[in-house]
Amino acid sequence: MGLFSSPAKVYKPAADVDLGPDSDEHYISPNVKAPRVAGLLVKLLAWVLEMPVVGWIVLSVLKRDNLVYKLVSDAEIPEPPLFTATHTWQDIPEQNVRLTKPGLPPPERVQEAVVCLTSPLPEPAAALADPSPGFRRWTVRDFHEAYSSGQTTPVMVARRFLAAVKECSGPEVNMALFISCDAADVMRQAEDSTRRYQQGAPLSAMDGVLVAVKDELDCAPYPTTGGTRWLAAARRPCGAGDAACVAQLRACGAVMAGKANMHELGAGTSGINPHHGATRNPYCLARVSGGSSGGSAAAVCAGLCPVALGADGGGSVRMPAALCGVVGFKPTAGRLSNSGLLPLNWTVGMPGILAATVEDALIAYAAIVDQSKPSHLQPELNLPMLTCTRSMPNIRLAKYAKWFDDCSEDIRSLCGKALQMLRTQYGWECVDVTVPEIEEMRLAHYVTMGSECTASLAKYLDNMSKSEIGWDVRIGLSAYRSFSSRDYLNAQRLRNRQMFFHNKIFETADAIVTPMTGVTAYPLQEDALGTGELDYINGAALVRYSIAGNFLGLPAITVPVGYDTGGLPVGLQFIGRPWSEATLLHLAYATQEACAREHRKPKVHYDLLLSKEY
Amino acid sequence: MGLFSSPAKVYKPAADVDLGPDSDEHYISPNVKAPRVAGLLVKLLAWVLEMPVVGWIVLSVLKRDNLVYKLVSDAEIPEPPLFTATHTWQDIPEQNVRLTKPGLPPPERVQEAVVCLTSPLPEPAAALADPSPGFRRWTVRDFHEAYSSGQTTPVMVARRFLAAVKECSGPEVNMALFISCDAADVMRQAEDSTRRYQQGAPLSAMDGVLVAVKDELDCAPYPTTGGTRWLAAARRPCGAGDAACVAQLRACGAVMAGKANMHELGAGTSGINPHHGATRNPYCLARVSGGSSGGSAAAVCAGLCPVALGADGGGSVRMPAALCGVVGFKPTAGRLSNSGLLPLNWTVGMPGILAATVEDALIAYAAIVDQSKPSHLQPELNLPMLTCTRSMPNIRLAKYAKWFDDCSEDIRSLCGKALQMLRTQYGWECVDVTVPEIEEMRLAHYVTMGSECTASLAKYLDNMSKSEIGWDVRIGLSAYRSFSSRDYLNAQRLRNRQMFFHNKIFETADAIVTPMTGVTAYPLQEDALGTGELDYINGAALVRYSIAGNFLGLPAITVPVGYDTGGLPVGLQFIGRPWSEATLLHLAYATQEACAREHRKPKVHYDLLLSKEY
Repeated sequence: MGLFSSPAKVYKPAADVDLGPDSDEHYISPNVKAPRVAGLLVKLLAWVLEMPVVGWIVLSVLKRDNLVYKLVSDAEIPEPPLFTATHTWQDIPEQNVRLTKPGLPPPERVQEAVVCLTSPLPEPAAALADPSPGFRRWTVRDFHEAYSSGQTTPVMVARRFLAAVKECSGPEVNMALFISCDAADVMRQAEDSTRRYQQGAPLSAMDGVLVAVKDELDCAPYPTTGGTRWLAAARRPCGAGDAACVAQLRACGAVMAGKANMHELGAGTSGINPHHGATRNPYCLARVSGGSSGGSAAAVCAGLCPVALGADGGGSVRMPAALCGVVGFKPTAGRLSNSGLLPLNWTVGMPGILAATVEDALIAYAAIVDQSKPSHLQPELNLPMLTCTRSMPNIRLAKYAKWFDDCSEDIRSLCGKALQMLRTQYGWECVDVTVPEIEEMRLAHYVTMGSECTASLAKYLDNMSKSEIGWDVRIGLSAYRSFSSRDYLNAQRLRNRQMFFHNKIFETADAIVTPMTGVTAYPLQEDALGTGELDYINGAALVRYSIAGNFLGLPAITVPVGYDTGGLPVGLQFIGRPWSEATLLHLAYATQEACAREHRKPKVHYDLLLSKEY
Repeated sequence: MGLFSSPAKVYKPAADVDLGPDSDEHYISPNVKAPRVAGLLVKLLAWVLEMPVVGWIVLSVLKRDNLVYKLVSDAEIPEPPLFTATHTWQDIPEQNVRLTKPGLPPPERVQEAVVCLTSPLPEPAAALADPSPGFRRWTVRDFHEAYSSGQTTPVMVARRFLAAVKECSGPEVNMALFISCDAADVMRQAEDSTRRYQQGAPLSAMDGVLVAVKDELDCAPYPTTGGTRWLAAARRPCGAGDAACVAQLRACGAVMAGKANMHELGAGTSGINPHHGATRNPYCLARVSGGSSGGSAAAVCAGLCPVALGADGGGSVRMPAALCGVVGFKPTAGRLSNSGLLPLNWTVGMPGILAATVEDALIAYAAIVDQSKPSHLQPELNLPMLTCTRSMPNIRLAKYAKWFDDCSEDIRSLCGKALQMLRTQYGWECVDVTVPEIEEMRLAHYVTMGSECTASLAKYLDNMSKSEIGWDVRIGLSAYRSFSSRDYLNAQRLRNRQMFFHNKIFETADAIVTPMTGVTAYPLQEDALGTGELDYINGAALVRYSIAGNFLGLPAITVPVGYDTGGLPVGLQFIGRPWSEATLLHLAYATQEACAREHRKPKVHYDLLLSKEY
């Protein structure tokens, strides 16, 4: 460290930082000069970084250039470390919510969620015939009603799904949505579900609904690869075979549709996986899906399932959701069980939901909340009444203009327009604030995530050949490994500051509003397919708005608000106070409805409910 | 790491470890081959370790030889990390205790403690005349009664104290007990106290009682050096000028007697301080006092004050207390406030009490408990009725024979004898158990303490000349700096395991009993006076039984049980379950009474209460 140190930042006490709109806090937009690196250059860099002494020196230079020393390692930070992002349960007064009884089983919670959606469903045929409200994806309730009415069956839908997976995995489109999909297992589940409908006894509104599961979560009968080609063999799977979230969905009758593709080890944002293929964006096959839950996002986008599970350690659910034009929802840390999730970065990562609509995000959320805690530690489950957006009074949205505007012109314009619509349509208030130290938080989160990833994977990595690992991830692992305990502890100090800042901001606002990403889906380049790529500029822009959700365990949701001039989706994000999921779902629903006319159909889209041919 | 790794330990799940007496868990007694290093060799080693690349390589070899890689860094540990040693408050059913009202001010808590000591005080003169019950130090109550009866005054005692400090600081004995002692400030406090007694209105039983304060705690009007010669100038002192514990003692009328010497930065166990002198053991001036609270322990031992404050991050209160033949008491983490304590290692360190007797440890404890928490988080304060040892039923002491016996022959014999006495005199039960992974825990604690020390001091160390720092501490700081975030996280995994093991053991026993140290006070060698020394063999033996108190935040107390063949004190330790301070004080009191006849007067001892001449 000493070799390469630049003048370190001396942080003033958090309580002395002005969070008002006229604060003199400096907003650092990373001024990245690093060129994009792919192909042979990635291999070279990986080799250099893995050399014992030279690698250490090169990494020191890289970390200095990226301000890691200045803002984290060597910084003087008055606050003590805060090691976790968990929040004590507090009962937030939320309006227009339905409070569920504690300890309900998953199917009854799904039923509670459905009660929150009292507006009559439009007839699918009518909806399809009338293009005026924009493109509309089939919801869980659409499937459930079609199954219940006998219009179709889970078996028919599963057949169409399997045909569609086959088609989009073929050499022509090669979308690489799934790492594994066992047709026999899918059909067996669909047959069981069909039988339940025939007997008039579906388990819940999710019965027979297809759900893709990111390959970072255990789901029988599949191995969990984490996007690698070695981890499944090295790791003992979790006892039950199903992650807690998966088991709850299964209890609701959902059909587990296979393991969705992901960025290897979650250690990247593009969704380019050298082992299992680069997940392509259904809105434009020449562009990335984002990551790491890229397969889940793209599968929902392409209409293959209304709901998918992902995992979000640094925006990994919300960011690909935004790039693929679907809803991405990460509840409060601790609201879902991490059981059966690869513990890659356990103080920042957790499962999350990708859904075609906010209604389905709500239903899936109700299904998978963790109710296994002792009753006195059990957060109460408020579900939002999604019919009442017009009567939600006094929503105050905090906006930090410098941060909000640090994105592409199209995103700035679309998100600004959406925000303006929310203010005029619902009378919501916008509070100008300063969220200090955004880039500092991103670096502290990177140190934390990297340190935890190293500590959790080391037992495998020490005993295997590096050639099993993708080149871009090898570079990431070299950086992760290099962090000192001092780096880690200082990063936790910054976590404490940010928790303080955000708690303060939530005294004046119900949620923070931001774009979800700084750029839309960027081109998938040929040279990255085998080696992955290092694209620090796009990478930093993709995670720019994600970090508070992970580093501070705050709930956050993204919802599509339109398309840039290239026709690529743009997402708006709401970050809420701990345990305010109902409010966030309200906000997202209101936004979805306000922007309904904007919704466009992706280039690749399968209609499992109405099409006859496969 | 990779360069020097040896086959790493694969830990089995904590729940699968047999904690019974016949467990096949391997007890590792560190088989140290490292020679003692002092003088020029220490300087050479410090230079080498501070060289950028060479230092890293040498440190890697040292860490490998000390099994850090094998047992911590590279180990496979199934449990997630546990980052703190704090415990949720639980109301333990304790017998023969007085439950105090919540929120009492310090003087009233002292009064509550005095009520727990109902046995009549022997007349000081009579006690002195009758040598049969062994040597007996004056207690807080002795001072209070002598002040109340007019037999002496705080001013007279303070004068004697100042004369004694002068005498023992002189070139002949050169005990180096204090880093600073402001005669005018001591006299001013004593005069105030004397006036209160003259007006018949002492603040509490501690009014006019001298208390030495380790120079790691803020205490006006002194700077806080942490045993360095640079920290006081570099650091902003805490707002009030007094640490929370000091302020509470002051509110009871205690006279702050000066800043006691300590091992520089608490980063060593000998109490040899190159800047402020090596604290000598009052039982043998040619031997160490132990550390890091060596000055506090030696001052109490020498009769200069019945109570002193120390700080205990790795046995730093209990270990010097044992070496100096006094009581050392570290309550549960969180029971005392860390406010105004240098945050050298904040998840393992906290203030602690050194006292001549268990009665005084109780009184000081009652005075300084932290009652500033919100009422629903406020642990209740049980105080032990110290008259009832004979009626304490069913005390079960857990003993791990291999560990208990891993000490010098004299210590083993004296501690065994004391334990036998407790069993026969009080009918207490001994439960044979296995406390697994003792050495593993010591290394994990070392990684934790070192990492935290680096992170808290870095802001100073980065900007100063190394020549300001003692040579032995420079070596320590080089080692501390070298820990990676992976080392730190794995150490926290081991913390989680140990918390599990100890909780399990406390299901079968009220306390764990061990010797306090593996060796008694060892010789103070000339060549160490200027440079400090590295004596890994003695160092490891000194902290062998300390770590659970710090790493797991458990309360622990040491009480003298006799003297080895060289006439050096030996301490017995009880480690309790969280919040069981009252039980520990009971155990210590019973032990003190059982061993009363063993107590011997140190070579250097000042009698402030009865002597006429100074």
